[in-house]
Amino acid sequence: MTLGTTVYLNGAFVAPSQAKISPFDRGFLFAHAAYEVTAVFDGKLIDFDAHLARLEKTLKGIEILQPSEDLRALHRELMDRNDLTEGLVYLQVSAGDQGPRDFAGPEELVPSVFMFVTHTTLIGDVARDGVTAVLAEDTRWLRRDMKTTQLLSQSLAYRAARRSGAHLAIMHETGQVTEAASANAWMVTQDGTLVTRDLSRALLPGITRASVARLLREAGLEVEERAFSLDELRSAAEVFTSSTGQLISPVISVDGVAVGAGQPGPVTRQVQRLYFSYLGANPDRFAWL
Amino acid sequence: MTLGTTVYLNGAFVAPSQAKISPFDRGFLFAHAAYEVTAVFDGKLIDFDAHLARLEKTLKGIEILQPSEDLRALHRELMDRNDLTEGLVYLQVSAGDQGPRDFAGPEELVPSVFMFVTHTTLIGDVARDGVTAVLAEDTRWLRRDMKTTQLLSQSLAYRAARRSGAHLAIMHETGQVTEAASANAWMVTQDGTLVTRDLSRALLPGITRASVARLLREAGLEVEERAFSLDELRSAAEVFTSSTGQLISPVISVDGVAVGAGQPGPVTRQVQRLYFSYLGANPDRFAWL
Repeated sequence: MTLGTTVYLNGAFVAPSQAKISPFDRGFLFAHAAYEVTAVFDGKLIDFDAHLARLEKTLKGIEILQPSEDLRALHRELMDRNDLTEGLVYLQVSAGDQGPRDFAGPEELVPSVFMFVTHTTLIGDVARDGVTAVLAEDTRWLRRDMKTTQLLSQSLAYRAARRSGAHLAIMHETGQVTEAASANAWMVTQDGTLVTRDLSRALLPGITRASVARLLREAGLEVEERAFSLDELRSAAEVFTSSTGQLISPVISVDGVAVGAGQPGPVTRQVQRLYFSYLGANPDRFAWL
Repeated sequence: MTLGTTVYLNGAFVAPSQAKISPFDRGFLFAHAAYEVTAVFDGKLIDFDAHLARLEKTLKGIEILQPSEDLRALHRELMDRNDLTEGLVYLQVSAGDQGPRDFAGPEELVPSVFMFVTHTTLIGDVARDGVTAVLAEDTRWLRRDMKTTQLLSQSLAYRAARRSGAHLAIMHETGQVTEAASANAWMVTQDGTLVTRDLSRALLPGITRASVARLLREAGLEVEERAFSLDELRSAAEVFTSSTGQLISPVISVDGVAVGAGQPGPVTRQVQRLYFSYLGANPDRFAWL
């Protein structure tokens, strides 16, 4: 994963080290900011309309005015300037510097826009080999349906995972799985049913989650959207996550205990084939698939 | 409330408009930051040891290294440079710019330190006339005992209060009051008992709350530390908040309904007299007290 050489900040294209914001920015003082991360594969922005729609919804929810920028054109320009053909475009819209620190702030919160890209191989070792996970209590705020920068719980969960030698954390509350720390969680039951949590304020409505669910249904597979318990997770035949950054990641162990056979399972491979094809990648390129 | 002319940022004293941070600062990307606000009255830092101790605890909890700065000397220097004799010193310690965005980040998170002061009259109209409050669902994360910049719930609650023409919001969950949006909440029951919520992960251990409880007990008054319901709040004889910025604020109405007689009550006035004396202010200075 390599950071691009040019970032965007409120009208200017500059080197990452040249980008500077005010520490009075409400994104810094109050975590008053929305963000989106869009995948780029083979030069194409994936599910961009859905990302824009979710951003618009988050901004309304946290009372920031919509940016005046043409965000689609800006994504393309930043991709061009960075020669990005595969990777991620990060976009953060914060409530900006509105003068002296005040919880409420002015009625109209004019946004501040920050964007950068990272070059990364989207379909790589993680997709092939899978990841290990630990469990973590979900301590996030209650409006997880909005994609904001209140990400401290997730950061701490990732740090705990790393200390355990694991790749990521799967979060839970009251005995039920909510989602992974930056991805939606899926399981395949022993009788082969695909399950992911139903949408509510308790989890992010993942864009990749939605696309995967649609692709699976179009392929004639059943997807159950419902809460599932830690016990169900532990006894699942397969577990995987869906996200923009990691696409479909097979989870091969949870808290050190193998999931199923301890390697990516057949249903997960089928999901990967469907989703990689949707991105425009020929599954035959990947011998392991 | 007037912002000082000089702020502190990682070793430099500069004008507020000259202070710039990287948008890759983890405080901006992940709300990975702790903060404290210390009151200054008559040139003295109030309860500074307690603020330092809480900061240290929060930083440990969110895994940021302790700053190498002598924070006490820095507070004094910033006060001197701004001729601050009454007001607030704000201190934010974020996890800094640790390179490309990564939820976990490096093992050692070297802090970034930002400070500014505001000149304000601590014992003013609010203390005299009281404030109006609205109720708001407490949607914060579950580690409210740590003072972090995950403050979006509070910002939105304050914004909702302002739209209703109220000063502040009192937050609640499962029918129980947790605290006000940036203060601890207290009530006086009809039989004159002072009640504030007991400490747990559900609320901030306010420094002013602790000092007030101690002063009240030293004065021979009973303080019950326990959860109390919205019904109890609505039928209370008096309600007030305690905080560094607003000290003791009488709450004269909740959601438009008068608390008690709809004006600051006698127990609240007693609390103010005790606390203002503790600050070194002669209560006789205030004719309304």
